[in-house]
Amino acid sequence: MKKLSEAEIQDELQSLPGWEYADNALHTGFEFENFKEAFTIMTRIAFEAEKLDHHPDWSNVYNQLHISLYTHTEDGVTEKDIALAKIINDLVS
Amino acid sequence: MKKLSEAEIQDELQSLPGWEYADNALHTGFEFENFKEAFTIMTRIAFEAEKLDHHPDWSNVYNQLHISLYTHTEDGVTEKDIALAKIINDLVS
Repeated sequence: MKKLSEAEIQDELQSLPGWEYADNALHTGFEFENFKEAFTIMTRIAFEAEKLDHHPDWSNVYNQLHISLYTHTEDGVTEKDIALAKIINDLVS
Repeated sequence: MKKLSEAEIQDELQSLPGWEYADNALHTGFEFENFKEAFTIMTRIAFEAEKLDHHPDWSNVYNQLHISLYTHTEDGVTEKDIALAKIINDLVS
């Protein structure tokens, strides 16, 4: 699992609406109807993250969810982050 | 639901091990064995928060969970924050 170059990341971001690359990680944010809707999506993401053995850095305040993806062992963004970002977009959309 | 004074908050904190008062809110952090354990506790907290209609500001990175409690409408700490902090400590212990 190798760290992607910035060019590779920017290329992947073309198919990841809502995500941006900054400070060596991928970031996005979502706003849901209420807490229950936000936590429902968090739960679905949690199961997928556990299956991938790759977990988000995330924070939630009521209906807002912010997610950062980063591969700690590579100190950057890898294919695992791209894969999890795609899963998250599929779950939310 | 009235904002508590700092003296009232410090008094409540006597029976809330692991919590501190700073920047107008209550804060704590927990470390679990892994992501699954952290998210399991988050789920139990989520149901209690929903029942109380009072929700945490929280962030999770793998096995780490940080929680801040604050009553937005009162711009401070109220009995609802104390109640949720007690529930969280009971769930985690």
